[in-house]
Amino acid sequence: FLLFAKKGAQSCWYLQTKEPLLLGRVFSGIQPTGVPHLGNYLGALGNWVSLQNQYSSVLYSIVDLHSITQPQDPKLLRTNILDMVASLLACGIDPRRAVLFQQSQVSEHAELSWILGCLTSMPRLRHLPQWKSKQKNEGSVGLYTYPVLQAADILLYKSTHVPVGEDQVQHLELAQDLARIFNHRFGDLFPEPRALLSSTRKIKSLREPSAKMSKSDPQTMATVFLTDSPDDVALKIRRSVTDFTSEVTFDPENRPGVSNLVSIHAAMATISVEEAVSQATGLDTGAYKQLVTEAVVQRLTPIRLQVERLRSDPAHLEHVLAQGASRARELAAPVLEEVKQRVGFC
Amino acid sequence: FLLFAKKGAQSCWYLQTKEPLLLGRVFSGIQPTGVPHLGNYLGALGNWVSLQNQYSSVLYSIVDLHSITQPQDPKLLRTNILDMVASLLACGIDPRRAVLFQQSQVSEHAELSWILGCLTSMPRLRHLPQWKSKQKNEGSVGLYTYPVLQAADILLYKSTHVPVGEDQVQHLELAQDLARIFNHRFGDLFPEPRALLSSTRKIKSLREPSAKMSKSDPQTMATVFLTDSPDDVALKIRRSVTDFTSEVTFDPENRPGVSNLVSIHAAMATISVEEAVSQATGLDTGAYKQLVTEAVVQRLTPIRLQVERLRSDPAHLEHVLAQGASRARELAAPVLEEVKQRVGFC
Repeated sequence: FLLFAKKGAQSCWYLQTKEPLLLGRVFSGIQPTGVPHLGNYLGALGNWVSLQNQYSSVLYSIVDLHSITQPQDPKLLRTNILDMVASLLACGIDPRRAVLFQQSQVSEHAELSWILGCLTSMPRLRHLPQWKSKQKNEGSVGLYTYPVLQAADILLYKSTHVPVGEDQVQHLELAQDLARIFNHRFGDLFPEPRALLSSTRKIKSLREPSAKMSKSDPQTMATVFLTDSPDDVALKIRRSVTDFTSEVTFDPENRPGVSNLVSIHAAMATISVEEAVSQATGLDTGAYKQLVTEAVVQRLTPIRLQVERLRSDPAHLEHVLAQGASRARELAAPVLEEVKQRVGFC
Repeated sequence: FLLFAKKGAQSCWYLQTKEPLLLGRVFSGIQPTGVPHLGNYLGALGNWVSLQNQYSSVLYSIVDLHSITQPQDPKLLRTNILDMVASLLACGIDPRRAVLFQQSQVSEHAELSWILGCLTSMPRLRHLPQWKSKQKNEGSVGLYTYPVLQAADILLYKSTHVPVGEDQVQHLELAQDLARIFNHRFGDLFPEPRALLSSTRKIKSLREPSAKMSKSDPQTMATVFLTDSPDDVALKIRRSVTDFTSEVTFDPENRPGVSNLVSIHAAMATISVEEAVSQATGLDTGAYKQLVTEAVVQRLTPIRLQVERLRSDPAHLEHVLAQGASRARELAAPVLEEVKQRVGFC
């Protein structure tokens, strides 16, 4: 599909879409948490689908090595990995455009992480979010050194662009520091990866609209998953917390519950917030919830059906991962080899 | 060479030597510090040569991943790796009996280290020797997590026996703990590796007989290297610090300098300490130093010549390492695969 890239030019051409592709390599990782929820879909995943159509080289990794920095049930982890692949494919990640792979299948991640760990001082990691936000001082070595592995994930492919949420900016800064430290000590090798901050709206919990929608929310009614049936979606939205004003307005500060529904509605129907509010004219919040439900169900139904189809064929999903790993290794192996030579191993 | 091993028997037979081999797997690692000195030779390396003839399966690794936990000059590191291989071969390590390989060539070490790091709590490493003895709190992540990689080195081969110096006992305990923790969480997989404490005499510095002989001693006269010329050996021993009593006795507490020479003499001539002292009857320390020099030169000359021969053919040394890595991987890959399955990656 990618036919030619002029050397030195700022862009190359992707024939199918006739859109110019930006030259650069995008890397991003997602934890294998199973089927994503609406917040993931409208946040990171939507962004991933856009980026695969914008950049000349894109890698997306299911970062299982990161996931075990918290205790996992092995059977559930395996299921979650395959569910995540199925969901990514169903949401529009195209393995012909993006290298989609499982981190632990590419040994170079752990290998580069060890080498970069020898260039990272212990205090450098102490105040990073992964450590501060979790069980302080009592966590595992894996949790503490997590950002070093993240830096390895990124640098291993000489990535130039990394989509990050605001909570990940400090981790990306470590990757940038390590690129500089390595280049300074062993000669230029790594580009300094730049952040791609996405401007996507944050979707909130349906039960507690001050908090982000989250997979691990103990209130099951708080979170809509991509595979929720239309009935489940309708129930969760009907039960969603709003205030006692019946008119629909968009005012996230004073009316977070209703405004969250407007955000979801606009995003799922791919219309503006203003258009969503205008469609709500004359409806009370109860009736508006039905409208939102329709928009969500309409958008999710093909995804849900596709996830179900893909889940029923784990061999296919494993094949997709194996192919992705093989392509990732082709890119990673020569970089690690160069690193090893620079360090003096060979 | 290894012809048969009776199932369930305590030993199998090594035909060439007609000596029964102990069933078990020995793993040990050595840092690529270049050509070893007399202390290494009479300590760890002599022990390695004995063990390869005693156990049914033996692996010796040049642990370059560990070496970079301290800053290294890349060119010197590469030279030191090859010099270490040459020295090990010259000292009698036989690649047909022991799998001799370079750690970084077997990716499974770093991979298992990551997984074990997720089972190790941060405080567990805080009081271990590698961290306490080096630059406190300011060292690298690599230095802090070094014992986890050591545990991975050992467990990766389901090793049963590990020759350790006293300073490494706590590190081996971590490997034992991690074997238990993994087995408890994911089902029995790893044997608990046992320490093989060697009873070799410690060789002291020739300039400061209260300290161990060391490669990094700033006093060049303090350390005899395996490749020192006969003249260098003679000079270093002639200049070695002794006391003003001319008679030779063995009394390490009160006469450390002379006693160190007696230890070296006995070890190099493979005679007892008593025999060495009796050979010194009637000699003053000056004359005895000549006797010690002769014993050292006689033992080291063939080793030095062999190291020089091997060093002149780096392609051969690289071939030896490549073959060792291939055999190590054959053992490591199925163990890591099993670990990944138990953890839930596949």
